[in-house]
Amino acid sequence: MNIRLDLQYDGTNYHGWQIQPNAVTVQSVITRAIAELTSERINLIGCGRTDAKVHAINYTANFFSETTIPVNQLHYAINTHLPDDIVIKSARVVGDDFKANQSAKKKTYVYRILNSELPDAFLKNYAWHYKYDLDIGKMKTAARDFLGEHDFVGFASAGFTVKTTVRTIYSLDIKKDGDIIGFEITGNGFLYNMVRIIVGTLVGMGNGRLDYTRAAEIIASRDREQAGITAPPQGLFLKEVIY
Amino acid sequence: MNIRLDLQYDGTNYHGWQIQPNAVTVQSVITRAIAELTSERINLIGCGRTDAKVHAINYTANFFSETTIPVNQLHYAINTHLPDDIVIKSARVVGDDFKANQSAKKKTYVYRILNSELPDAFLKNYAWHYKYDLDIGKMKTAARDFLGEHDFVGFASAGFTVKTTVRTIYSLDIKKDGDIIGFEITGNGFLYNMVRIIVGTLVGMGNGRLDYTRAAEIIASRDREQAGITAPPQGLFLKEVIY
Repeated sequence: MNIRLDLQYDGTNYHGWQIQPNAVTVQSVITRAIAELTSERINLIGCGRTDAKVHAINYTANFFSETTIPVNQLHYAINTHLPDDIVIKSARVVGDDFKANQSAKKKTYVYRILNSELPDAFLKNYAWHYKYDLDIGKMKTAARDFLGEHDFVGFASAGFTVKTTVRTIYSLDIKKDGDIIGFEITGNGFLYNMVRIIVGTLVGMGNGRLDYTRAAEIIASRDREQAGITAPPQGLFLKEVIY
Repeated sequence: MNIRLDLQYDGTNYHGWQIQPNAVTVQSVITRAIAELTSERINLIGCGRTDAKVHAINYTANFFSETTIPVNQLHYAINTHLPDDIVIKSARVVGDDFKANQSAKKKTYVYRILNSELPDAFLKNYAWHYKYDLDIGKMKTAARDFLGEHDFVGFASAGFTVKTTVRTIYSLDIKKDGDIIGFEITGNGFLYNMVRIIVGTLVGMGNGRLDYTRAAEIIASRDREQAGITAPPQGLFLKEVIY
């Protein structure tokens, strides 16, 4: 059986999704939980990597299993083997051709900034505290230049291995609610650190250190040096994956 | 100078407010931060004790100091010596007779329950996950019996040392917002664990394990055994102290 899991995690205490030696990752913790439960060694396929401290409100994974546990009860059973910062929300049987990574059509990320003079004790792990002025109007204007299909190689950190660096962004909305500035971005896929570099660039433009009229030019330059900083990880949330 | 601090803290990683041997507490961490900054050994008076894992959205403290740091800049300076789960929001000079504990006239606490089948990875430290049905109507009805002046000795955990166990509750509101049930309670003071025992009792009534028409009787019994369980600490937030 090919089993799809929909889950969420608070990434604060993890070195991201992907299994790596000598680090606690979400993939390794769930893989071990399933092994404890079913005595199976499974290959858990995730919908994508997330970095250390990045969160997932909705994350999708799949694995093949011969478990006799009723699948509609499986998420409760796995949860009893998980720490409480990872929650499996549902488990269901899907077609054998479903692959959480390759089948994904769209992803939506949310990025949160706390734009206030003082930090907030409750948001330390869930937002980027940025205390300088930000011009939301300039950021919204610049955001429009990111929409559509572009080669985003200038918005990727070193170390990626992908066939193409062309991606399509369907929407990029910026909203201010009190001291919180929220970015919501949907695309057909994202390069390594791409959302965080887009946010860092828009923040540079909102703050005036980068020219907000130059976004299209910066994208076209395909030069990482032209773009802004990589926004810190704790403000980033994977919100949804569409298949 | 008598200096008043208004602050907030995420209590997750602290053994409560009060200094105790071999435990990291909010009072000890702030006292040390001020000592590092001013080289003074100060006596930091807090508005009340909070238990391990209990949070404070607004907490007030005071201390006497001869620091030459401008008081309107003092909170920034102290924050640089604090971990990011404690934030001093303001510092100001107050009259010598101001005592954060004894001068308090009213306190407001908020208690949050996540009332859903599945837990939430992001609320593990900020709500009580209670998965059984709760009848909000019964809880609201029972809540009315707590209003006014009563001897709440039956709603206190052992170990308190107070002159009187009579307290006045001015308001006790219960609101449901999606899966979150929020309690907001204001009184002239609260006994040890009193808010958490009131919430535990109301939850018992909402769930039907306790008779929701018996709240007045349970209070009058002055018997801890008659009341409900002590709700867990992570759902409790000190919201405001009025002087």
